Amino acid sequence: MISKKEQSNHRQLQQRLGYKFQNNKLLTRALTHRSHGSNHYERLEFLGDSILNFVIAEDLFNRFKRAREGKLSRLRAKMVRKNTLADIAREFDLGAYMIMGSGELKSGGFQLDSILSDTLEAIIGAIFVDAGLDVVRPTIISWFLSRLENLSLDHSLKDAKSRLQELLQSRQSALPRYNVFKTSGQSHNQTFYVECQSELLAAPVLGEGSSRRIAEQEAASLALLQLGVENDLD
Amino acid sequence: MISKKEQSNHRQLQQRLGYKFQNNKLLTRALTHRSHGSNHYERLEFLGDSILNFVIAEDLFNRFKRAREGKLSRLRAKMVRKNTLADIAREFDLGAYMIMGSGELKSGGFQLDSILSDTLEAIIGAIFVDAGLDVVRPTIISWFLSRLENLSLDHSLKDAKSRLQELLQSRQSALPRYNVFKTSGQSHNQTFYVECQSELLAAPVLGEGSSRRIAEQEAASLALLQLGVENDLD
Repeated sequence: MISKKEQSNHRQLQQRLGYKFQNNKLLTRALTHRSHGSNHYERLEFLGDSILNFVIAEDLFNRFKRAREGKLSRLRAKMVRKNTLADIAREFDLGAYMIMGSGELKSGGFQLDSILSDTLEAIIGAIFVDAGLDVVRPTIISWFLSRLENLSLDHSLKDAKSRLQELLQSRQSALPRYNVFKTSGQSHNQTFYVECQSELLAAPVLGEGSSRRIAEQEAASLALLQLGVENDLD
Repeated sequence: MISKKEQSNHRQLQQRLGYKFQNNKLLTRALTHRSHGSNHYERLEFLGDSILNFVIAEDLFNRFKRAREGKLSRLRAKMVRKNTLADIAREFDLGAYMIMGSGELKSGGFQLDSILSDTLEAIIGAIFVDAGLDVVRPTIISWFLSRLENLSLDHSLKDAKSRLQELLQSRQSALPRYNVFKTSGQSHNQTFYVECQSELLAAPVLGEGSSRRIAEQEAASLALLQLGVENDLD
Protein backbone atom coordinates (compact mmCIF):
# COMPACT_ATOMS: atom_id res chain seq x y z
CA MET A 1 0.00 0.00 0.00
CA ILE A 2 1.24 3.42 -0.93
CA SER A 3 -0.12 6.30 1.17
CA LYS A 4 -1.60 9.50 -0.27
CA LYS A 5 1.33 11.51 1.08
CA GLU A 6 3.75 9.10 -0.55
CA GLN A 7 1.86 9.36 -3.84
CA SER A 8 2.10 13.14 -3.80
CA ASN A 9 5.78 12.98 -2.88
CA HIS A 10 6.38 10.52 -5.68
CA ARG A 11 4.68 12.81 -8.20
CA GLN A 12 7.01 15.65 -7.31
CA LEU A 13 10.13 13.52 -7.41
CA GLN A 14 9.18 11.94 -10.72
CA GLN A 15 8.82 15.37 -12.27
CA ARG A 16 12.36 16.17 -11.16
CA LEU A 17 13.69 12.86 -12.43
CA GLY A 18 11.91 13.30 -15.76
CA TYR A 19 10.39 9.83 -15.56
CA LYS A 20 6.95 8.60 -14.47
CA PHE A 21 6.88 5.06 -13.08
CA GLN A 22 4.26 2.56 -14.26
CA ASN A 23 4.86 0.56 -11.08
CA ASN A 24 5.19 2.97 -8.18
CA LYS A 25 6.36 0.23 -5.84
CA LEU A 26 9.64 0.16 -7.72
CA LEU A 27 10.26 3.79 -6.85
CA THR A 28 9.35 3.17 -3.21
CA ARG A 29 11.81 0.31 -3.09
CA ALA A 30 14.54 2.36 -4.76
CA LEU A 31 14.10 4.98 -2.03
CA THR A 32 14.17 2.52 0.88
CA HIS A 33 17.42 2.22 2.82
CA ARG A 34 18.21 -1.10 4.48
CA SER A 35 17.86 0.55 7.89
CA HIS A 36 14.09 0.58 7.22
CA GLY A 37 13.60 -3.14 6.59
CA SER A 38 14.18 -5.97 4.18
CA ASN A 39 12.52 -4.41 1.10
CA HIS A 40 15.47 -2.12 0.53
CA TYR A 41 17.17 -0.83 -2.59
CA GLU A 42 20.38 -2.82 -2.67
CA ARG A 43 19.50 -5.26 -5.45
CA LEU A 44 18.28 -2.38 -7.61
CA GLU A 45 21.47 -0.50 -6.81
CA PHE A 46 23.54 -3.47 -8.03
CA LEU A 47 21.65 -3.43 -11.32
CA GLY A 48 21.60 0.37 -11.67
CA ASP A 49 25.34 0.68 -11.11
CA SER A 50 26.07 -1.57 -14.08
CA ILE A 51 23.54 0.23 -16.30
CA LEU A 52 25.00 3.63 -15.41
CA ASN A 53 28.52 2.45 -16.19
CA PHE A 54 27.45 1.10 -19.55
CA VAL A 55 25.35 4.11 -20.58
CA ILE A 56 28.10 6.59 -19.70
CA ALA A 57 30.74 4.43 -21.40
CA GLU A 58 28.66 4.30 -24.57
CA ASP A 59 28.11 8.07 -24.55
CA LEU A 60 31.82 8.80 -24.05
CA PHE A 61 32.79 6.26 -26.72
CA ASN A 62 30.62 8.12 -29.24
CA ARG A 63 31.35 11.61 -27.95
CA PHE A 64 35.15 11.31 -28.04
CA LYS A 65 35.80 9.34 -31.18
CA ARG A 66 39.54 9.75 -31.05
CA ALA A 67 40.14 9.48 -27.30
CA ARG A 68 42.16 6.54 -26.09
CA GLU A 69 40.94 3.93 -23.64
CA GLY A 70 42.89 5.50 -20.75
CA LYS A 71 41.23 8.85 -21.28
CA LEU A 72 37.76 7.31 -21.67
CA SER A 73 38.27 5.43 -18.40
CA ARG A 74 39.33 8.59 -16.58
CA LEU A 75 36.36 10.54 -17.91
CA ARG A 76 33.95 7.80 -16.96
CA ALA A 77 35.40 7.56 -13.46
CA LYS A 78 34.85 11.30 -13.13
CA MET A 79 31.20 10.98 -14.22
CA VAL A 80 30.19 8.00 -12.06
CA ARG A 81 32.20 8.69 -8.91
CA LYS A 82 30.36 8.94 -5.63
CA ASN A 83 30.41 12.70 -5.23
CA THR A 84 29.22 13.39 -8.79
CA LEU A 85 26.26 11.06 -8.23
CA ALA A 86 25.57 12.65 -4.85
CA ASP A 87 25.58 16.11 -6.47
CA ILE A 88 23.00 14.98 -9.01
CA ALA A 89 20.94 13.37 -6.23
CA ARG A 90 20.99 16.72 -4.40
CA GLU A 91 19.76 18.52 -7.52
CA PHE A 92 16.69 16.24 -7.23
CA ASP A 93 16.57 16.84 -3.45
CA LEU A 94 16.59 13.06 -3.18
CA GLY A 95 17.39 13.06 0.55
CA ALA A 96 13.93 14.46 1.29
CA TYR A 97 12.25 11.43 -0.29
CA MET A 98 14.33 8.67 1.25
CA ILE A 99 12.77 6.06 3.51
CA MET A 100 15.08 5.16 6.41
CA GLY A 101 15.12 3.78 9.90
CA SER A 102 14.83 6.42 12.61
CA GLY A 103 18.42 5.96 13.79
CA GLU A 104 19.77 6.54 10.31
CA LEU A 105 17.43 9.54 9.87
CA LYS A 106 18.61 11.13 13.12
CA SER A 107 22.25 10.69 12.24
CA GLY A 108 21.61 12.43 8.92
CA GLY A 109 22.24 9.43 6.66
CA PHE A 110 20.15 11.03 3.91
CA GLN A 111 22.86 13.69 3.54
CA LEU A 112 25.74 11.28 3.04
CA ASP A 113 27.36 11.12 -0.40
CA SER A 114 27.52 7.33 -0.21
CA ILE A 115 23.81 6.85 0.53
CA LEU A 116 22.69 9.49 -1.95
CA SER A 117 24.78 7.98 -4.74
CA ASP A 118 23.60 4.44 -3.94
CA THR A 119 19.98 5.63 -4.02
CA LEU A 120 20.46 7.33 -7.38
CA GLU A 121 21.85 4.08 -8.78
CA ALA A 122 18.88 2.21 -7.32
CA ILE A 123 16.52 4.61 -9.10
CA ILE A 124 18.33 3.88 -12.36
CA GLY A 125 17.83 0.15 -11.70
CA ALA A 126 14.15 0.75 -10.92
CA ILE A 127 13.53 2.72 -14.13
CA PHE A 128 15.25 -0.06 -16.09
CA VAL A 129 13.04 -2.74 -14.51
CA ASP A 130 9.97 -0.55 -15.07
CA ALA A 131 10.61 0.41 -18.70
CA GLY A 132 13.79 -1.09 -20.16
CA LEU A 133 17.07 0.23 -21.49
CA ASP A 134 15.61 2.38 -24.28
CA VAL A 135 13.86 4.50 -21.65
CA VAL A 136 16.49 4.59 -18.90
CA ARG A 137 19.29 5.46 -21.32
CA PRO A 138 18.00 8.92 -22.40
CA THR A 139 16.87 9.58 -18.81
CA ILE A 140 20.40 9.03 -17.50
CA ILE A 141 21.91 11.13 -20.28
CA SER A 142 19.53 13.99 -19.48
CA TRP A 143 20.72 13.95 -15.86
CA PHE A 144 24.37 14.02 -16.89
CA LEU A 145 24.07 16.21 -19.98
CA SER A 146 25.59 19.44 -18.68
CA ARG A 147 28.49 17.51 -17.17
CA LEU A 148 29.06 15.53 -20.36
CA GLU A 149 28.97 18.72 -22.41
CA ASN A 150 31.50 20.33 -20.08
CA LEU A 151 33.81 17.39 -20.71
CA SER A 152 33.41 18.00 -24.45
CA LEU A 153 34.22 21.66 -23.99
CA ASP A 154 37.27 20.98 -21.83
CA HIS A 155 38.40 18.44 -24.38
CA SER A 156 38.01 20.63 -27.46
CA LEU A 157 39.44 23.68 -25.71
CA LYS A 158 42.44 21.75 -24.51
CA ASP A 159 43.01 20.57 -28.05
CA ALA A 160 42.83 24.18 -29.21
CA LYS A 161 45.65 25.39 -26.94
CA SER A 162 47.93 22.51 -27.89
CA ARG A 163 47.12 23.00 -31.54
CA LEU A 164 47.89 26.71 -31.44
CA GLN A 165 51.28 26.02 -29.91
CA GLU A 166 52.07 23.39 -32.53
CA LEU A 167 50.94 25.70 -35.33
CA LEU A 168 53.14 28.59 -34.17
CA GLN A 169 56.12 26.27 -33.78
CA SER A 170 55.59 24.90 -37.29
CA ARG A 171 55.66 28.51 -38.57
CA GLN A 172 58.88 29.28 -36.64
CA SER A 173 57.01 31.79 -34.48
CA ALA A 174 57.50 32.37 -30.73
CA LEU A 175 55.10 30.65 -28.31
CA PRO A 176 51.81 32.50 -27.63
CA ARG A 177 51.58 34.61 -24.48
CA TYR A 178 48.47 34.54 -22.27
CA ASN A 179 47.63 37.37 -19.90
CA VAL A 180 44.69 37.81 -17.50
CA PHE A 181 43.69 41.46 -17.95
CA LYS A 182 40.42 41.45 -15.97
CA THR A 183 38.34 39.40 -13.57
CA SER A 184 34.75 40.05 -12.53
CA GLY A 185 32.19 38.57 -10.14
CA GLN A 186 32.31 37.19 -6.59
CA SER A 187 35.18 34.92 -5.57
CA HIS A 188 33.11 31.74 -5.86
CA ASN A 189 31.68 32.73 -9.24
CA GLN A 190 34.35 34.68 -11.08
CA THR A 191 34.78 35.33 -14.78
CA PHE A 192 38.31 35.55 -16.15
CA TYR A 193 39.24 37.63 -19.20
CA VAL A 194 42.43 36.60 -20.95
CA GLU A 195 44.26 37.96 -23.97
CA CYS A 196 46.38 35.80 -26.18
CA GLN A 197 49.24 37.46 -28.05
CA SER A 198 51.38 36.24 -30.90
CA GLU A 199 53.47 37.97 -33.58
CA LEU A 200 51.28 36.22 -36.17
CA LEU A 201 48.10 37.88 -34.84
CA ALA A 202 47.26 41.46 -35.85
CA ALA A 203 45.89 42.17 -32.37
CA PRO A 204 45.51 40.22 -29.09
CA VAL A 205 42.61 37.77 -29.11
CA LEU A 206 40.30 37.80 -26.09
CA GLY A 207 38.86 34.79 -24.28
CA GLU A 208 36.68 34.52 -21.19
CA GLY A 209 35.66 31.69 -18.91
CA SER A 210 34.90 30.55 -15.38
CA SER A 211 38.57 29.74 -14.82
CA ARG A 212 41.82 31.13 -16.09
CA ARG A 213 42.49 27.86 -17.87
CA ILE A 214 39.16 27.89 -19.71
CA ALA A 215 39.59 31.54 -20.69
CA GLU A 216 43.07 30.82 -22.08
CA GLN A 217 41.78 27.86 -24.01
CA GLU A 218 38.96 29.88 -25.48
CA ALA A 219 41.39 32.59 -26.55
CA ALA A 220 43.56 29.94 -28.21
CA SER A 221 40.55 28.53 -29.99
CA LEU A 222 39.64 31.97 -31.37
CA ALA A 223 43.25 32.60 -32.36
CA LEU A 224 43.19 29.40 -34.42
CA LEU A 225 40.06 30.61 -36.19
CA GLN A 226 41.70 33.99 -36.95
CA LEU A 227 44.76 32.25 -38.33
CA GLY A 228 42.48 30.41 -40.74
CA VAL A 229 42.91 27.02 -39.09
CA GLU A 230 39.74 24.96 -38.69
CA ASN A 231 38.76 24.47 -35.08
CA ASP A 232 38.21 20.78 -35.30
CA LEU A 233 35.64 19.92 -32.65
CA ASP A 234 35.12 16.22 -32.18
CA MET B 1 41.86 -4.25 -47.06
CA ILE B 2 41.18 -7.65 -45.62
CA SER B 3 43.19 -10.51 -47.15
CA LYS B 4 41.69 -13.81 -48.32
CA LYS B 5 43.45 -15.66 -45.51
CA GLU B 6 42.06 -13.20 -42.99
CA GLN B 7 38.56 -13.63 -44.46
CA SER B 8 38.78 -17.39 -44.10
CA ASN B 9 40.12 -17.06 -40.58
CA HIS B 10 37.33 -14.68 -39.72
CA ARG B 11 34.71 -17.07 -41.02
CA GLN B 12 35.98 -19.83 -38.75
CA LEU B 13 36.18 -17.58 -35.69
CA GLN B 14 32.72 -16.13 -36.29
CA GLN B 15 31.27 -19.65 -36.36
CA ARG B 16 32.83 -20.28 -32.97
CA LEU B 17 31.59 -16.95 -31.58
CA GLY B 18 28.09 -17.56 -32.92
CA TYR B 19 28.00 -14.16 -34.57
CA LYS B 20 28.61 -13.01 -38.15
CA PHE B 21 29.85 -9.44 -38.51
CA GLN B 22 28.28 -7.07 -41.03
CA ASN B 23 31.43 -4.96 -40.90
CA ASN B 24 34.44 -7.26 -40.85
CA LYS B 25 36.81 -4.40 -40.07
CA LEU B 26 35.33 -4.27 -36.57
CA LEU B 27 36.41 -7.85 -35.95
CA THR B 28 39.88 -7.13 -37.32
CA ARG B 29 40.19 -4.18 -34.99
CA ALA B 30 38.95 -6.19 -32.00
CA LEU B 31 41.69 -8.74 -32.70
CA THR B 32 44.49 -6.18 -33.05
CA HIS B 33 46.80 -5.71 -30.08
CA ARG B 34 48.44 -2.32 -29.61
CA SER B 35 51.84 -3.88 -30.33
CA HIS B 36 50.71 -4.07 -33.98
CA GLY B 37 49.89 -0.40 -34.50
CA SER B 38 47.47 2.38 -33.74
CA ASN B 39 44.27 0.69 -34.96
CA HIS B 40 44.14 -1.51 -31.88
CA TYR B 41 41.29 -2.85 -29.79
CA GLU B 42 41.54 -0.74 -26.64
CA ARG B 43 38.57 1.58 -27.25
CA LEU B 44 36.38 -1.42 -28.11
CA GLU B 45 37.64 -3.16 -24.98
CA PHE B 46 36.56 -0.16 -22.87
CA LEU B 47 33.08 -0.36 -24.34
CA GLY B 48 32.87 -4.16 -24.23
CA ASP B 49 33.87 -4.34 -20.58
CA SER B 50 30.93 -2.15 -19.56
CA ILE B 51 28.50 -4.11 -21.74
CA LEU B 52 29.68 -7.42 -20.30
CA ASN B 53 29.29 -6.15 -16.74
CA PHE B 54 25.79 -4.95 -17.44
CA VAL B 55 24.61 -8.06 -19.32
CA ILE B 56 25.90 -10.41 -16.62
CA ALA B 57 24.45 -8.20 -13.85
CA GLU B 58 21.05 -8.25 -15.52
CA ASP B 59 21.14 -12.02 -15.95
CA LEU B 60 22.11 -12.62 -12.31
CA PHE B 61 19.49 -10.13 -11.09
CA ASN B 62 16.79 -12.13 -12.90
CA ARG B 63 18.29 -15.57 -12.21
CA PHE B 64 18.65 -15.14 -8.44
CA LYS B 65 15.54 -13.23 -7.47
CA ARG B 66 16.14 -13.48 -3.74
CA ALA B 67 19.92 -13.10 -3.64
CA ARG B 68 21.26 -10.04 -1.88
CA GLU B 69 23.44 -7.42 -3.49
CA GLY B 70 26.60 -8.82 -1.86
CA LYS B 71 25.99 -12.25 -3.31
CA LEU B 72 25.14 -10.85 -6.76
CA SER B 73 28.37 -8.84 -6.72
CA ARG B 74 30.42 -11.90 -5.78
CA LEU B 75 28.81 -14.01 -8.50
CA ARG B 76 29.37 -11.33 -11.10
CA ALA B 77 33.00 -10.92 -10.09
CA LYS B 78 33.41 -14.68 -10.56
CA MET B 79 31.87 -14.51 -14.05
CA VAL B 80 33.78 -11.51 -15.42
CA ARG B 81 37.16 -12.02 -13.81
CA LYS B 82 40.22 -12.23 -16.02
CA ASN B 83 40.76 -15.96 -15.89
CA THR B 84 37.11 -16.82 -16.61
CA LEU B 85 37.23 -14.57 -19.69
CA ALA B 86 40.55 -16.07 -20.74
CA ASP B 87 39.07 -19.59 -20.41
CA ILE B 88 36.20 -18.63 -22.71
CA ALA B 89 38.65 -17.01 -25.14
CA ARG B 90 40.60 -20.28 -25.21
CA GLU B 91 37.42 -22.22 -25.98
CA PHE B 92 37.25 -20.06 -29.14
CA ASP B 93 41.00 -20.54 -29.72
CA LEU B 94 41.15 -16.76 -29.84
CA GLY B 95 44.93 -16.60 -29.49
CA ALA B 96 45.29 -18.11 -32.97
CA TYR B 97 43.42 -15.19 -34.54
CA MET B 98 45.09 -12.30 -32.76
CA ILE B 99 47.07 -9.69 -34.66
CA MET B 100 50.18 -8.62 -32.74
CA GLY B 101 53.62 -7.13 -33.19
CA SER B 102 56.36 -9.70 -33.74
CA GLY B 103 57.95 -9.08 -30.32
CA GLU B 104 54.66 -9.73 -28.54
CA LEU B 105 54.06 -12.81 -30.71
CA LYS B 106 57.48 -14.26 -29.90
CA SER B 107 57.04 -13.73 -26.19
CA GLY B 108 53.71 -15.58 -26.36
CA GLY B 109 51.45 -12.62 -25.53
CA PHE B 110 48.53 -14.36 -27.23
CA GLN B 111 48.60 -16.96 -24.43
CA LEU B 112 48.35 -14.46 -21.58
CA ASP B 113 45.13 -14.35 -19.56
CA SER B 114 45.19 -10.55 -19.54
CA ILE B 115 45.47 -10.16 -23.32
CA LEU B 116 42.96 -12.93 -24.05
CA SER B 117 40.39 -11.44 -21.69
CA ASP B 118 40.92 -7.91 -23.07
CA THR B 119 40.44 -9.23 -26.60
CA LEU B 120 37.24 -11.03 -25.66
CA GLU B 121 35.89 -7.77 -24.21
CA ALA B 122 36.91 -5.96 -27.40
CA ILE B 123 34.96 -8.51 -29.46
CA ILE B 124 31.91 -7.80 -27.28
CA GLY B 125 32.37 -4.09 -27.97
CA ALA B 126 32.73 -4.79 -31.69
CA ILE B 127 29.53 -6.88 -31.85
CA PHE B 128 27.70 -4.10 -30.00
CA VAL B 129 28.90 -1.45 -32.48
CA ASP B 130 28.05 -3.77 -35.38
CA ALA B 131 24.56 -4.83 -34.27
CA GLY B 132 23.43 -3.25 -30.98
CA LEU B 133 22.55 -4.51 -27.54
CA ASP B 134 19.70 -6.79 -28.58
CA VAL B 135 22.17 -8.89 -30.56
CA VAL B 136 25.21 -8.79 -28.30
CA ARG B 137 23.20 -9.66 -25.19
CA PRO B 138 22.10 -13.19 -26.23
CA THR B 139 25.53 -13.77 -27.77
CA ILE B 140 27.24 -13.05 -24.45
CA ILE B 141 24.74 -15.17 -22.54
CA SER B 142 25.35 -18.10 -24.91
CA TRP B 143 29.09 -17.89 -24.17
CA PHE B 144 28.51 -17.87 -20.41
CA LEU B 145 25.49 -20.18 -20.27
CA SER B 146 27.07 -23.31 -18.81
CA ARG B 147 28.85 -21.22 -16.16
CA LEU B 148 25.67 -19.33 -15.29
CA GLU B 149 23.75 -22.58 -15.03
CA ASN B 150 26.41 -24.02 -12.75
CA LEU B 151 25.95 -21.03 -10.47
CA SER B 152 22.21 -21.76 -10.41
CA LEU B 153 22.86 -25.38 -9.57
CA ASP B 154 25.34 -24.54 -6.81
CA HIS B 155 22.88 -22.05 -5.44
CA SER B 156 19.80 -24.27 -5.41
CA LEU B 157 21.74 -27.28 -4.12
CA LYS B 158 23.26 -25.24 -1.35
CA ASP B 159 19.80 -24.11 -0.37
CA ALA B 160 18.68 -27.73 -0.30
CA LYS B 161 21.30 -28.84 2.22
CA SER B 162 20.61 -25.93 4.54
CA ARG B 163 16.88 -26.46 4.22
CA LEU B 164 17.14 -30.15 5.06
CA GLN B 165 19.09 -29.36 8.21
CA GLU B 166 16.55 -26.74 9.27
CA LEU B 167 13.65 -29.10 8.57
CA LEU B 168 15.13 -31.92 10.66
CA GLN B 169 15.88 -29.53 13.52
CA SER B 170 12.31 -28.22 13.43
CA ARG B 171 11.09 -31.83 13.74
CA GLN B 172 13.44 -32.50 16.70
CA SER B 173 15.37 -35.03 14.61
CA ALA B 174 19.15 -35.56 14.62
CA LEU B 175 21.23 -33.89 11.88
CA PRO B 176 21.48 -35.81 8.59
CA ARG B 177 24.61 -37.89 7.99
CA TYR B 178 26.38 -37.87 4.60
CA ASN B 179 28.67 -40.69 3.53
CA VAL B 180 30.66 -41.19 0.30
CA PHE B 181 30.14 -44.85 -0.56
CA LYS B 182 31.67 -44.91 -4.04
CA THR B 183 33.75 -42.86 -6.48
CA SER B 184 34.35 -43.58 -10.16
CA GLY B 185 36.37 -42.13 -13.02
CA GLN B 186 39.88 -40.72 -13.36
CA SER B 187 41.23 -38.39 -10.69
CA HIS B 188 40.61 -35.21 -12.74
CA ASN B 189 37.11 -36.28 -13.74
CA GLN B 190 35.64 -38.22 -10.82
CA THR B 191 32.05 -38.89 -9.91
CA PHE B 192 31.12 -39.05 -6.22
CA TYR B 193 28.24 -41.14 -4.88
CA VAL B 194 26.92 -40.05 -1.51
CA GLU B 195 24.19 -41.41 0.72
CA CYS B 196 22.24 -39.20 3.06
CA GLN B 197 20.78 -40.82 6.21
CA SER B 198 18.21 -39.57 8.65
CA GLU B 199 15.87 -41.30 11.10
CA LEU B 200 13.00 -39.63 9.23
CA LEU B 201 13.91 -41.35 5.96
CA ALA B 202 12.83 -44.97 5.35
CA ALA B 203 16.12 -45.65 3.54
CA PRO B 204 19.29 -43.70 2.69
CA VAL B 205 18.88 -41.31 -0.25
CA LEU B 206 21.57 -41.34 -2.94
CA GLY B 207 23.13 -38.36 -4.67
CA GLU B 208 25.92 -38.11 -7.21
CA GLY B 209 28.03 -35.28 -8.58
CA SER B 210 31.41 -34.12 -9.82
CA SER B 211 32.43 -33.22 -6.26
CA ARG B 212 31.62 -34.55 -2.82
CA ARG B 213 29.90 -31.31 -2.02
CA ILE B 214 27.64 -31.40 -5.08
CA ALA B 215 26.78 -35.06 -4.44
CA GLU B 216 25.84 -34.27 -0.83
CA GLN B 217 23.72 -31.37 -1.91
CA GLU B 218 21.93 -33.47 -4.49
CA ALA B 219 21.20 -36.13 -1.88
CA ALA B 220 19.80 -33.45 0.44
CA SER B 221 17.63 -32.12 -2.36
CA LEU B 222 16.19 -35.59 -3.02
CA ALA B 223 15.67 -36.15 0.71
CA LEU B 224 13.59 -32.97 0.85
CA LEU B 225 11.44 -34.30 -2.00
CA GLN B 226 10.95 -37.63 -0.21
CA LEU B 227 9.95 -35.82 2.97
CA GLY B 228 7.24 -34.05 1.00
CA VAL B 229 8.89 -30.64 1.14
CA GLU B 230 8.85 -28.64 -2.06
CA ASN B 231 12.29 -28.19 -3.50
CA ASP B 232 11.97 -24.49 -4.15
CA LEU B 233 14.36 -23.68 -6.99
CA ASP B 234 14.68 -19.98 -7.59
